[in-house]
Amino acid sequence: MSTDHQPAVAVHGGAGHLGADDPASSGGPSAPRLVGVRHAAEEALALLARGGSALDAVELAVRILEDDPTYNAGTGAVLNEAGEVELDASIMDGATLACGAIASVRDVQNPVTLARRVMDRSAHVLLAGPGASAFARAVGIPACDPARLVTPAQRARWEAARSASRAPVGHGTVGAVARDRQGHVAAATSTGGTSMKLPGRVGDTPLVGCGTYADDALAAVSCTGHGERIIQLTLARHCADLVGRGLTATAAAAEAIRLLGDRVKGEGGVIVVGPTGAPGFAHNTPIMTRAWSDAKGAILAAL
Amino acid sequence: MSTDHQPAVAVHGGAGHLGADDPASSGGPSAPRLVGVRHAAEEALALLARGGSALDAVELAVRILEDDPTYNAGTGAVLNEAGEVELDASIMDGATLACGAIASVRDVQNPVTLARRVMDRSAHVLLAGPGASAFARAVGIPACDPARLVTPAQRARWEAARSASRAPVGHGTVGAVARDRQGHVAAATSTGGTSMKLPGRVGDTPLVGCGTYADDALAAVSCTGHGERIIQLTLARHCADLVGRGLTATAAAAEAIRLLGDRVKGEGGVIVVGPTGAPGFAHNTPIMTRAWSDAKGAILAAL
Repeated sequence: MSTDHQPAVAVHGGAGHLGADDPASSGGPSAPRLVGVRHAAEEALALLARGGSALDAVELAVRILEDDPTYNAGTGAVLNEAGEVELDASIMDGATLACGAIASVRDVQNPVTLARRVMDRSAHVLLAGPGASAFARAVGIPACDPARLVTPAQRARWEAARSASRAPVGHGTVGAVARDRQGHVAAATSTGGTSMKLPGRVGDTPLVGCGTYADDALAAVSCTGHGERIIQLTLARHCADLVGRGLTATAAAAEAIRLLGDRVKGEGGVIVVGPTGAPGFAHNTPIMTRAWSDAKGAILAAL
Repeated sequence: MSTDHQPAVAVHGGAGHLGADDPASSGGPSAPRLVGVRHAAEEALALLARGGSALDAVELAVRILEDDPTYNAGTGAVLNEAGEVELDASIMDGATLACGAIASVRDVQNPVTLARRVMDRSAHVLLAGPGASAFARAVGIPACDPARLVTPAQRARWEAARSASRAPVGHGTVGAVARDRQGHVAAATSTGGTSMKLPGRVGDTPLVGCGTYADDALAAVSCTGHGERIIQLTLARHCADLVGRGLTATAAAAEAIRLLGDRVKGEGGVIVVGPTGAPGFAHNTPIMTRAWSDAKGAILAAL
């Protein structure tokens, strides 16, 4: 087994606008949004350095961000029109094209791990709603009281949105892409979706090829932003194809985001890593919280 | 407005194996499976000839097949592990990239029309489960008793599968692609999914880029077959891309199906129409029920 490749990771904590009500983005390098993605990237890179797989690394990074109430995924997810959390997640292994996803799940602490179980222990790719919860129980993932996932900040935002004429767009989807020492790539993404969404709304995050894609022959990609626009372009698959046609991760990310804006007037961001080369990212929103490994194995982070 | 293009349509009624328990496939040209797809294609082509849009044509063709108990979509859908119908559908307009989809819906007679309403009357692309049913009621689509969608033949198959060691794979997903006189393309797909699926399982059919894709710059595509394998390759988008790179619809279909078999050992079929040229199809299953328009405006049908 070849172990010639330098491990690489990139993590995002969502693309969006810097809201006045967002203290998590303030404080320079110690802003909670930056601390979280940096920590997730460091843990994922350490796992890769020990010889762990890209698949395990992206699951770990996304789990850490799901448990961080700063982000719109797992604990801290936005609420739908009915005031409830509905969580979406997906994961894909570029070595085998195996993938798993869940949508509209209310009672699981770590949606990305349930997606991993769908991939590993079912004949299916995507499970939605109560059926996904029933599968979680069948594979030993305990029920989580949905109220535990709702932070006071998100409840307050929902109360404000309910009395406002226009709902705020969600911000803070999380995702990770990684390359391991064997040169395999993987990607994972997790979200609470858009604030005030209709119950049952499924965005790009749990859709293979839209929010997440990974293929060793191409690249690993995780998207964030306006899900309905990302779906129209199957943006993760398109971005991976661009790497397959010879673009660097950075150039592919830039071209994918250009297309998102030009073709469907979509806002969002993308992180990319190929089987060789450095991780790349691009966004057309004012900010995209992110952390990534550089050529020296250090973790950098930026808003 | 240019009306230089010859209308074109292709319809499928599923790719699969010719079961011994499938009288619908027997009887030569009068086999129920053939009669249904021929009728759907004729009605869609007549609509196009009157100047109707590709989008309306694919919705009409799929509605006709949903109401035909011969196929695994709408009335006549297969049953999941719990003995219930759960319907998936999607539709996409190549002129605008607008798309809509529904998943795991139990109480709607015509899932493709609910998908169209999601596209036309919501800010979302995909609604799943009870949320999709609530949206249906909000836009005036009446509830349909799920028991009305279950045919005696499907109930008998479910009873047999429940007592067998191995579940049969579903067969009879329906789909349509069309090009209108303006040269716009559209695609739609509808299914009951795989027999004995886990409740909440979502296949390729309602996933934009997997079961369905349409872009005037590329082509319109509808897939059928082993959904989990189709998802791994985002097959509809990939096939449309092949047309965008210059392949004919027939060549693109053949290459997409070759990839499905070679890369992920998947079985299935695909129908394709580009903004110019003849419709194409391919499958690697023993049969794929289909009907299509030829250069003279006649409808042909084959198993």
